Parts: sequence; C-alpha cells; structure tokens
Amino acid sequence: MRFATFFYEGRTSWGRVDGDDILDLGGLPDAPGTLKDAVAQDRLDFDGPAARLPRHTVTLLPVIPDPGKILCVGHNYESHRKETGRAKVSYPSIFTRFADTLIADGAPLVMPKASADFDFEAELAVVIGKGGRNIPETDAMAHVAGYACFNDGSLRDWQWHTTQFTPGKNFPGTAPFGPELVTPDEISDLDSVLVQSILNGDVMQEAPVAHMIFPIPVIIAYVSQFTPLSPGDVIATGTPGGVGAKRTPPVWMKPGDEIEIRISGIGSLKNTVRAET
Amino acid sequence: MRFATFFYEGRTSWGRVDGDDILDLGGLPDAPGTLKDAVAQDRLDFDGPAARLPRHTVTLLPVIPDPGKILCVGHNYESHRKETGRAKVSYPSIFTRFADTLIADGAPLVMPKASADFDFEAELAVVIGKGGRNIPETDAMAHVAGYACFNDGSLRDWQWHTTQFTPGKNFPGTAPFGPELVTPDEISDLDSVLVQSILNGDVMQEAPVAHMIFPIPVIIAYVSQFTPLSPGDVIATGTPGGVGAKRTPPVWMKPGDEIEIRISGIGSLKNTVRAET
Repeated sequence: MRFATFFYEGRTSWGRVDGDDILDLGGLPDAPGTLKDAVAQDRLDFDGPAARLPRHTVTLLPVIPDPGKILCVGHNYESHRKETGRAKVSYPSIFTRFADTLIADGAPLVMPKASADFDFEAELAVVIGKGGRNIPETDAMAHVAGYACFNDGSLRDWQWHTTQFTPGKNFPGTAPFGPELVTPDEISDLDSVLVQSILNGDVMQEAPVAHMIFPIPVIIAYVSQFTPLSPGDVIATGTPGGVGAKRTPPVWMKPGDEIEIRISGIGSLKNTVRAET
Repeated sequence: MRFATFFYEGRTSWGRVDGDDILDLGGLPDAPGTLKDAVAQDRLDFDGPAARLPRHTVTLLPVIPDPGKILCVGHNYESHRKETGRAKVSYPSIFTRFADTLIADGAPLVMPKASADFDFEAELAVVIGKGGRNIPETDAMAHVAGYACFNDGSLRDWQWHTTQFTPGKNFPGTAPFGPELVTPDEISDLDSVLVQSILNGDVMQEAPVAHMIFPIPVIIAYVSQFTPLSPGDVIATGTPGGVGAKRTPPVWMKPGDEIEIRISGIGSLKNTVRAET
C-alpha cells in the first residue's frame, strides 16, 4: 500500500494512494488523526467509504510532516565514501535533522541566502512503524512501516565549518520527503531497488540499495541502541556517489533547477530550487 | 526570578522559586500551561495567589522537559579544546540532543549497558525566550529567557565511533538539566559566572563563562542562521577542560557516583549515577 499526507480544502489529512487518486481516509469518522497516528496505532489497514480525491486537487505535505526523530546516515554507499575520501569505519555515521527542514514533493527547495554550495543527496528513507530500543538486527525489518524518497539537501560550506554536520544539514526547507509512504510488501527485492538523483534531467547519482555499507537492519539495530525509536521516526539511509560537491568543478543546485529523487518501486520526488526571499 | 517545572500530587506544574518554596503558578486559573508556554507568551511575570509548596514536597522535572530543539556546542572553552587536541576553528561546533535524554535535578543519571565510558560535561544552558532567525549578535541577548545548569553526559566510545557525536550524546537519561531557569536580571556579570563539575566532592572542571571561545551572542547568531529558534529551545554552551576522558588514567562515572554541576549564581544540579536495568 501507498499513503500520502496532504492539504485539501482547508484541512490536513492523509489517505491511501489508488492510482491517480487519493482515498481520504483521514476524513472518515474514527480514523487515526494523521498518517503517523495510523502507523503508531498499527492501523494502516484502516478503511471505509473514503472520498476519492484526484491527486492533482490536493497539496502534498511531507509524508510524515512531524517525525519525532530524523536520523541520517553519512557515507553509507561505498561510491560516496570513496569520493569523500573518508576512512572506512566500523559503525554507521549518524547525524540529525530537525523536522522543520522537511518539505513535500513539489514544494520549493529553498537555497538559503547564507550559502550557494547547495548539494543534492538521493536517499531511501525508512519510516519506523513499531518503536523500540535495542532492536536486534534479526527483528529490525519488522519495525519498518515503509519507505519513501528523501533528498538530504546539504549546504556544504556550512556542513564543513567544523567536524559536525549539523549546520549544513538543517537549513529550513532543504529536505524533500515523499511523495508517498510505501509499505514493505510492495517491494519484492529491496537489494535491487535503485536510488537515483536526477538534476535537470541528468542522472547524477545511482546505486542499488545492495551497495549500502551498513544495511538497513544494521542501522536500525545500531541507532536503537543509543536512542529509543518511535512510530513515525525517520532514518535517511545515506546517499550514493556522484554528489555535486565531489565533481570537478563542483555542481551546485541553483534557483530554477529541478532535482528529482527517483527510487525504483518507491517513487519520484521532484522539487524546484528557489532562492530564499 | 527563578522558575522550576515539577510534579506534584498527580500533575505536572511550574512555578516561581521563592527561597525554599515554589509558588505553584501553573495551578492558577489562566496560567500558561507550562514554563515553556510562559516563556513563549512572554508571561514569566504571571502572578497570582499561588499555593506555596515546600520544595522538598515536589518532584523536580527537567526545567524545560520538552524543548523543540537542543543544540550543543563542542570544544567551546580553550582548556577543553586543548585537552582534546582539536584544531582551532572559525565556527562553533554544533551537535544535537533529543529531548528524551533530559533528566531532572536529583533524578538517576543512567549509565547504559552499552558503555562504561561515561563522562560528565559541566555546561551553562541558555534557554531561548523570543524566537527568531538570523538574529544579529547585537540583539542576541534579548532572545535569552534565562539560564540553567546542564550536564552533557557523554558515552565517549559511542561519541567517537565516527566523526559525528550523535550516538554518544543521545543515550536516554544522560543529560541533567536544571534545577531552575534563572532570568538574566539575576546575573550581574555573566563573564565571571563560574562553571564547575564536582565528582564525589572533587572539582573536576572549572572555568568562567569569559573563557568561552564563542561567546553566547556569537553562538545564538550563528545557530539562528541555519535553524529558526523558538521559545524554550536550549543551547548548551560547551564545557571547560577537565573532562574524565582526557585524564590519565581516564576517570569514568560509575554507579553510585554523585556528579554535581555548580554554576555560580545559577544553581547546583546534582545527580547520582545508576546502572541501566
């Protein structure tokens, strides 16, 4: 199943995607209030006589607009680790984002006044279903509610001010997340899922999930050792090689550029860059 | 003025500290619901015929239990930068904590099963009053609601798994924060405020606020460039030299130890280490 969070006729709702329509489950009596609530209550199978809204009539929101935690994995594809010159490490490299960095599919991707070194990072996002602490690797996939596309938009100069990535990863409006939450049963072979970024029509990054240095169960097990995971929490699982910063000369996103994160079987997340006003 | 957040007779409340008593402002009609609300509504001057609760009858909570953002500054005292061997940098080093790491004065400080390299870090916490983005240095102090003691409890092995500090700084129950929010008018000379950690009665860290590499207005200006600040957000402003990890041999906190963060004019924050069960 595929789910979306959206704004329609003055209210925020959520629903199940059915072809070109969205079934407005959030508008039904007794519905979980949000998609995150539906995940938390294990009620993604909630159903009823929902209004059928043509997709073009709603405004999508980030698929989970307000995750409690957003954890991001750095240098998690070998092709990206090599281009960054980072040493091999024994653990996933984890940094965080605030929820106010998230934007929806189609929303303007904000290039801040403070920097023009604006880079894309195609990532597969994992949305946590059942929460937990010290989740064993062998049980980790049972804690996944689903997947979405994620663009870990990065201001590279701010990311590299010090060793800590926080500043370059937390400008508002720099993290497209969506368009849909795709449940694991939709993906027959996760390893072969292809993660791409496409800038103005040119493929910039491309790797299958199989190329992750730390696979998803390892990440979930590691993260849940130091912090409890809750329903709706998001883990952005790292980006393949080919980022703009490591090209010669560097390729930065600029106002008017269209950046797409395309993940096979998951979806296409498109945003156009706009300068901060 | 001094404020506390507490639990009393089945409810969470907040109030103004008056000697050994707390005036239960949260229990009054029309009161802001929480201390964070009072800060957000600029109503720290809210008053009324509040019940007077002897301090020993309430259970303190983290002074702001649920900040929207907790930003921490690394290596911000010269004595600590030197002992870590870190290069001088031109910008504050910023990492984050989740709110579920916070605990109150007097609550057990949890040493996780996953690590015994448990270190203390005495820090002055700044609580944001008026929010904002791109706050100029010259205006920054007007955005401070007050100060509190903060212990940035760190699992050093996890902190150093990779370049990113997130894991070692986010184990639950590792960040004592309190006991009180102290408004800026209570502090006549911020530069001379002395930040200390005291382990089982021995002073381990000690430096005046004047020794910060990046002073508070510089930190607020820097942080607010990349992320909007909101009322109740917390900035932990870094720790003086003398941490346990940089001693020979290292001094780790262990179950039964009492760690105090003492900041002159601000307060004393005491916690006893307990092993995770």
